[in-house]
Amino acid sequence: MINNGISIENAAQMLLGADNILILCHKNPDGDTLGSAAALMYALKSRNKICAVLCQDKIPEKYDFLGIDVYENQFVPEFIVSVDVADQKLFGDDVMVYGENVDLCIDHHPSNTGYAKAVCCDGTLPAAAQLMYSVVAAMDVEIDRTIANCLYTGLMTDTGCFKFSSTTAETHIVAAELLRCGAEHNFISERFFMSRSKKTIELEKYALNTMEYYFDGRCAVIVLPKDVLEKVNAQPSDIDGISAIPRSIEGVDVGITIRQINDNTFKISVRTTECANASEIAQGLGGGGHTRAAGCEVICSLEGAKNAILREVETALCR
Amino acid sequence: MINNGISIENAAQMLLGADNILILCHKNPDGDTLGSAAALMYALKSRNKICAVLCQDKIPEKYDFLGIDVYENQFVPEFIVSVDVADQKLFGDDVMVYGENVDLCIDHHPSNTGYAKAVCCDGTLPAAAQLMYSVVAAMDVEIDRTIANCLYTGLMTDTGCFKFSSTTAETHIVAAELLRCGAEHNFISERFFMSRSKKTIELEKYALNTMEYYFDGRCAVIVLPKDVLEKVNAQPSDIDGISAIPRSIEGVDVGITIRQINDNTFKISVRTTECANASEIAQGLGGGGHTRAAGCEVICSLEGAKNAILREVETALCR
Repeated sequence: MINNGISIENAAQMLLGADNILILCHKNPDGDTLGSAAALMYALKSRNKICAVLCQDKIPEKYDFLGIDVYENQFVPEFIVSVDVADQKLFGDDVMVYGENVDLCIDHHPSNTGYAKAVCCDGTLPAAAQLMYSVVAAMDVEIDRTIANCLYTGLMTDTGCFKFSSTTAETHIVAAELLRCGAEHNFISERFFMSRSKKTIELEKYALNTMEYYFDGRCAVIVLPKDVLEKVNAQPSDIDGISAIPRSIEGVDVGITIRQINDNTFKISVRTTECANASEIAQGLGGGGHTRAAGCEVICSLEGAKNAILREVETALCR
Repeated sequence: MINNGISIENAAQMLLGADNILILCHKNPDGDTLGSAAALMYALKSRNKICAVLCQDKIPEKYDFLGIDVYENQFVPEFIVSVDVADQKLFGDDVMVYGENVDLCIDHHPSNTGYAKAVCCDGTLPAAAQLMYSVVAAMDVEIDRTIANCLYTGLMTDTGCFKFSSTTAETHIVAAELLRCGAEHNFISERFFMSRSKKTIELEKYALNTMEYYFDGRCAVIVLPKDVLEKVNAQPSDIDGISAIPRSIEGVDVGITIRQINDNTFKISVRTTECANASEIAQGLGGGGHTRAAGCEVICSLEGAKNAILREVETALCR
């Protein structure tokens, strides 16, 4: 599928032959792009390479423990490697100057566009971290506790704690190896899966109290108005989990979360079971995404936004 | 610790030497006691044994897929094995006639009281299912998809999707083996971790709306009164997830859920971070359990129950 695909061994050799290495993450960074990039950074440093990590967006505080060295022009990049980035568009404008000259891409998205000079991509894996585990091993780097923590973060977050369908026996084998190498799994799960901010709790309370059901309970809708978000002083990370709520309810095939950005702009998140296509629903209003999770942005009144998305949902449920 | 402790191999030999086997679960059954019992049932059947499973409480619908044969006097028990039951008290009154004559207990609770004639217990394991995996293997039974699904259910539910601190590399190795044997992990995770009943949502809403904080926010308390539970027509399985909520909030070290059983009987669930010992808190009111998750039952008024547990929490937080 990708013409410039290379093996894990070749990727490791390319990295070992390079120096002054810039590691690129995708914008709106998550645990997989950051954990995999951090693991590669430590692996390269252990082989005495100069390297650093660049991301368009500020790295959220909850990833501070990864100890990522952020690139701030401390060297002139001679080799650029991207991690968990399927498409150049995902670098973000500020990083595009580097994103257009990627030497090596290490990724796990079947949709990888092949934008890099060399691509090491396994679309069957649930996380880039699972591939990075093999790349680091092929670099003949010993996986210490620090690297294990980085890789475990990517593995755990991108598999939703080993729950998503893409998880395989091999994923668990890698998890076991990382625990043997000292990964502090409980610290990491506490951080990403077992704690919620008081702000998130406030939003959840609001969401549950105001949730509406449509189409015989097959669609649940949460609206988060701007004044509520401001009152709670909610950050994007506080809102993240909310959009998973409506779809998680028994009998609900389409979960909709409408977030007010300003007076007449609304961001709509669409989550579905296998009974409806989230991407098609979002496309109806000019958005897009994956089969089970997609989104769009509309400019109109709240009632207008709600009616518009409900029309798309109705069409999708009738298919 | 337990005088009558026996090895996995001896437990397997005892089972293979018996017939007309009654498998006992604990009351308020969860995924581990049911999954492990079901796996043992299928393993025994594959060795042509007559057997069935008995539990004081009705098995919740969401476990129907395990296909458990419930004991209804279809044979006279010659051998009684309990699974995931730390203490005779946990059988429940209706089952006690059998619970007083247990030949073999297979368990993973460090607090196991050693009530059975022979006890195969490994208190270091996060789930009875992990031990049962070894017992079934020692019985020389091939783990097919059915048995793998049963064991995976126990493993996944009792480790909270591999998140709890008791999870080890070996747990992931067993998970990998179960996936290789065909365990439908995505079906199981959807069922137990990615969907919530409408009743659970109603209870969550009530819980969030009425939650109280104590000791500078280090303790959060949820009370579920009988009339609320009845109004929602909540089954124990709808309540399961609620007790995880208070501890999951940022800054909370002790999460308490008080459930009213009848006018003056309350069941208290205690969940803690590493900053407090749940088992010690519950023991203060005659209960017990694990370091991070424990429980007790008290007979008094609601205010009395709340004050009593808060005194124990205060002591624990001061340690």
